Amino acid sequence: MTLNKNTNILIIGLGVIGGGYAAALTAKGYRVSCITKNKTDIEYALEHGMILYGTTELDENLIKSAELIVFAVYPTVFIEWIKSNQHLFSPGTLITDVTGVKSSVVDEVQSILRDDVEFISAHPMAGRERSGVEYSDPEVFKGANYIVTPTEKNTIEAIEVCKELGRELGFTRISELSITEHDEMIAFLSQLTHCIAVSLMTCRDTDSLERYTGDSFRDLTRIAKINEKMWAELFLMNKDALLCEMNSFIKEFNRFKDMIQSGDRKGLEEKMKTSTARRALFDKK
Amino acid sequence: MTLNKNTNILIIGLGVIGGGYAAALTAKGYRVSCITKNKTDIEYALEHGMILYGTTELDENLIKSAELIVFAVYPTVFIEWIKSNQHLFSPGTLITDVTGVKSSVVDEVQSILRDDVEFISAHPMAGRERSGVEYSDPEVFKGANYIVTPTEKNTIEAIEVCKELGRELGFTRISELSITEHDEMIAFLSQLTHCIAVSLMTCRDTDSLERYTGDSFRDLTRIAKINEKMWAELFLMNKDALLCEMNSFIKEFNRFKDMIQSGDRKGLEEKMKTSTARRALFDKK
Repeated sequence: MTLNKNTNILIIGLGVIGGGYAAALTAKGYRVSCITKNKTDIEYALEHGMILYGTTELDENLIKSAELIVFAVYPTVFIEWIKSNQHLFSPGTLITDVTGVKSSVVDEVQSILRDDVEFISAHPMAGRERSGVEYSDPEVFKGANYIVTPTEKNTIEAIEVCKELGRELGFTRISELSITEHDEMIAFLSQLTHCIAVSLMTCRDTDSLERYTGDSFRDLTRIAKINEKMWAELFLMNKDALLCEMNSFIKEFNRFKDMIQSGDRKGLEEKMKTSTARRALFDKK
Repeated sequence: MTLNKNTNILIIGLGVIGGGYAAALTAKGYRVSCITKNKTDIEYALEHGMILYGTTELDENLIKSAELIVFAVYPTVFIEWIKSNQHLFSPGTLITDVTGVKSSVVDEVQSILRDDVEFISAHPMAGRERSGVEYSDPEVFKGANYIVTPTEKNTIEAIEVCKELGRELGFTRISELSITEHDEMIAFLSQLTHCIAVSLMTCRDTDSLERYTGDSFRDLTRIAKINEKMWAELFLMNKDALLCEMNSFIKEFNRFKDMIQSGDRKGLEEKMKTSTARRALFDKK
């Protein structure tokens, strides 16, 4: 398949990410429908012109007519959905997802999926600290990264469509990573940061601390307002890679602590110079 | 003294904070001069209408005519300046500062200061990751916290002027803390967060990681672009309180890690629920 304005796109799961996809694609002139579990989310999306049609039912005709299906649901829900409902896909349907961990998901889905349907996995790096379609905003895709994670089961055509989807959504940098590379990267860049933010928020009772705080604490804990069900799932699905990054962070943090303990001003300054130089690469272009 | 539009205000040190003070007070109609070490910073401030007059010299008349002097320099520079130049103050001059640690600074300055001059210490919680007058912006004071840290050596009048200064600068919440309370609070809210951000930035080589990152890593490392000289000084001046907060963070982070290790989904979810509830208090009003 190729992606064009007549492609029937179906989004399954209209949350903050699914909603952002719907809004961005509809704004570009694509035909977007959705299946999601809450009727009120569909009403919201229709009112805001984000979708053509939505239903809470397993609408067989809608699924059959879909040429590109985006799963924007929890990893476990995604896998279960495929198991139960893949007989409803038309041959040649292309499936993609937005899942934050890959090794536990992609292999399983690709191994159970029908041979005449292809699953190409991707990760839009534009999560929000709030969940729900009413917080979806395609503006967050601008300047953000989009990672496609193909396996040997994927065709060049599907990889290309998936990248095209990322570009049409408005992402600035489209990259390709293997499943393993992706999960290591995400353990460091995303999961470790969430573990740090939560620990910072829970390590001390905050009674009236908000009266005295500056922006640094606010920044480091923005993501401490967190969807606990989704993230517990993501952490545990990527356990080994995450534990490895947590240990490496603790090691480095202890090194910094030892320098403070021993009054090693020069060592501290060196670390901070490295930090400043490295951080410069991360500013949004 | 009382603060009014005829008060001669002198700012010593025209960096990102001193510059923000100058701009905010001048915009409100106050008479603001400055002494700072770089001529180009004075030129910048004059061009942008931030000050009435500035000099790189130890201008005796300027210092004598100042009724309120704000020190916006490194802690060690502040102490040395007082030692060398306090004979130039007029009797009745009120001094304040913007220093990020208090126990190592306030006691020393108050103990060496002339009896006819008063020092009331304050901490504007609105630091920036960039230094230099060209990055100063009084807008950052809006919605931010301002902490006055009086000791038994301070008069009620001086405390009131200092709070009034905070209000005139545009700060939203003006609080009072003891020196010890302040330094504990800052060890947690500000110094610990900087140690975390730097360690996160230095614990892994970042080659091309910026291609894959999302906003969470960017947020947690905004302050990893850091003025290494100033922060090494601040960390070491508040060593005991900071080490205590670092240890408590490591303990909590390890607890979270153990839950991941053992697959304790319920424990992780509980922690994250606590985190979400606590973080809600920190949103800017």
